[in-house]
Amino acid sequence: VTVASSRCFTVTMPVDYADTDAGGVVYYANYLAHMERARNAWLRSLGWPVTVLARRHCVLFTVTQANLRYHAPAHLDDELAVTLDVQRLQRASIRFRQTVLRVGDGEGDGHRDGDGDGDGEGDRDGDGDNALLVAAEIRLGAVNGATFKPCRLPAPLTVAIDRWRQFDRDLDATVTVAPAFVTPAVF
Amino acid sequence: VTVASSRCFTVTMPVDYADTDAGGVVYYANYLAHMERARNAWLRSLGWPVTVLARRHCVLFTVTQANLRYHAPAHLDDELAVTLDVQRLQRASIRFRQTVLRVGDGEGDGHRDGDGDGDGEGDRDGDGDNALLVAAEIRLGAVNGATFKPCRLPAPLTVAIDRWRQFDRDLDATVTVAPAFVTPAVF
Amino acid sequence: VTVASSRCFTVTMPVDYADTDAGGVVYYANYLAHMERARNAWLRSLGWPVTVLARRHCVLFTVTQANLRYHAPAHLDDELAVTLDVQRLQRASIRFRQTVLRVGDGEGDGHRDGDGDGDGEGDRDGDGDNALLVAAEIRLGAVNGATFKPCRLPAPLTVAIDRWRQFDRDLDATVTVAPAFVTPAVF
Amino acid sequence: VTVASSRCFTVTMPVDYADTDAGGVVYYANYLAHMERARNAWLRSLGWPVTVLARRHCVLFTVTQANLRYHAPAHLDDELAVTLDVQRLQRASIRFRQTVLRVGDGEGDGHRDGDGDGDGEGDRDGDGDNALLVAAEIRLGAVNGATFKPCRLPAPLTVAIDRWRQFDRDLDATVTVAPAFVTPAVF
Repeated sequence: VTVASSRCFTVTMPVDYADTDAGGVVYYANYLAHMERARNAWLRSLGWPVTVLARRHCVLFTVTQANLRYHAPAHLDDELAVTLDVQRLQRASIRFRQTVLRVGDGEGDGHRDGDGDGDGEGDRDGDGDNALLVAAEIRLGAVNGATFKPCRLPAPLTVAIDRWRQFDRDLDATVTVAPAFVTPAVF
Repeated sequence: VTVASSRCFTVTMPVDYADTDAGGVVYYANYLAHMERARNAWLRSLGWPVTVLARRHCVLFTVTQANLRYHAPAHLDDELAVTLDVQRLQRASIRFRQTVLRVGDGEGDGHRDGDGDGDGEGDRDGDGDNALLVAAEIRLGAVNGATFKPCRLPAPLTVAIDRWRQFDRDLDATVTVAPAFVTPAVF
Repeated sequence: VTVASSRCFTVTMPVDYADTDAGGVVYYANYLAHMERARNAWLRSLGWPVTVLARRHCVLFTVTQANLRYHAPAHLDDELAVTLDVQRLQRASIRFRQTVLRVGDGEGDGHRDGDGDGDGEGDRDGDGDNALLVAAEIRLGAVNGATFKPCRLPAPLTVAIDRWRQFDRDLDATVTVAPAFVTPAVF
Repeated sequence: VTVASSRCFTVTMPVDYADTDAGGVVYYANYLAHMERARNAWLRSLGWPVTVLARRHCVLFTVTQANLRYHAPAHLDDELAVTLDVQRLQRASIRFRQTVLRVGDGEGDGHRDGDGDGDGEGDRDGDGDNALLVAAEIRLGAVNGATFKPCRLPAPLTVAIDRWRQFDRDLDATVTVAPAFVTPAVF
């Protein structure tokens, strides 16, 4: 399955042993962690990291629903792109559409036989396309950090999300949020 | 504890809920996953991803020793830098020195009360310095992927590591290995 | 929410720091690992551990769908019961209904303020009932271990599952599958 | 390596996909989670679950050191025994000796080729003995739950631990702490 879609927030990450299981592929639960990382990166890009939500507004997000379809496996050293779009924004909840894609590298050299057994089976399409691995709907509910009762999202956050959706719909934005791997000159 | 050290390979990553535990800090086992991600990123930067090692040379790395000292906790939304240096390179093993630092943000606004309870306790030094959180020695042994018996590292990998150590000692290199968070125009 | 249901396979486990996140509750992805443990324990109880499936029949299970509803959080030291029932058995797939319950201890002493902050908030009903925390539908597909193409379940496994469903429907079975915590006299 | 040792607290658990990585073996970080589960089960058996420590005494444990030696890998469906002994008990810290053993099943039928590839390589000794997989020293420090400063262990806990060490040294105790897998008649 190949996916062409612009305009959704995306983080990329390589597959390491920590992500995989003895089947040689990414363990099914670990995609949920990757999806959380994408949501948090998106909130940070909006200026609303979860710690600010908690500290200034006493609001926590809890996941209330997760529906996942697993289409194809990811292997060691694959480059994953985890995307995020807001399907529905309500007073006290957000419903996300999230996907995990394998980033095509166009090398077409079987380089990506990543299950550690060196068999080069290569049941992946590769070469420049992005394959859809997982599609998900995730619903977050806002709760009061003290009582754990449902509560409204802070109004400025709702405004920021609306603005992002508007901006995101109108522009073909390419925004680099943060470099991941850096060798700084001095620590 | 503040650390000034140049010239070691570094990857950075934010702390997400997936990394933390109910104590409000990063769970002690999860640093080992981060350290593996740094080692893999370093191998990729040398042109030797673990899948190439497995496929072309039938060599796997196994961790044989891990010694960790936990100096200070990391909290939600902290930015971590995971460093790597090669302490000793032998025929069939590599001993790494790895650290996890919290990247100072110089904001000094208590922004980093990250345990989700919004108490702003802020027992962290912050403000521009990098605090040493975890120091580790990790020893990897090379094994044959079929027999799991110890085996030599491929000679070209040994050469590449030696070159990296030489380069790394002589230059104050700043190398961006890969961007982590990107919103590509088209998927 | 209280659940009264007999006749489904159940494993129990306490909540440890490894399961939780900085929100003080079990991290949403970790329930999927617990559910896998329950499925594997069930397969072992049928005489069909996944390694036997792989070795003798070259069959692997892959998760193709997971739908989860999170009703209430679990805290540190809570005792969880993870249940399993077979909703639908087909030639090449199994659809499970799984739940995670918090086992009521009837103590009613606030003993279960488990988020490590000692605030004793106790938003849990407790006292003898089992609270439904998570309800899930999980669909496994059988694939050939070499080609990763869908394949039939081994006929004897299908027979064993049918027998289990029949047995399970007719009897109020209490089967202790395995003790978890033991101090053996001699190792 | 075979280990004969009586008189240390032990929990057992099977290896599931959640524990493993693409190398076909238990991921090196995951043993630390298992060791935490053993420590918590031991504290519960003493009547001192971590939540009681936090709630009644405002004491948290943090891991300050972990030294691990990995001797042999564990595979899918292996039965692990995680042991615990107290090496040193001080005012504000406990140093544990912990091991992970593979429980021998005496079947000697290659049944334990657990890496999911069905190759039956069977590099394990098996048959009735327990193989030492991982040996570790773990040091916990007690800290005040509010200030995170080091603090004394509650005196009654110190007494309970001393009693356990005394009891444990004098008796060949076999204590079943809790059944793990149960199909209760009614939920």
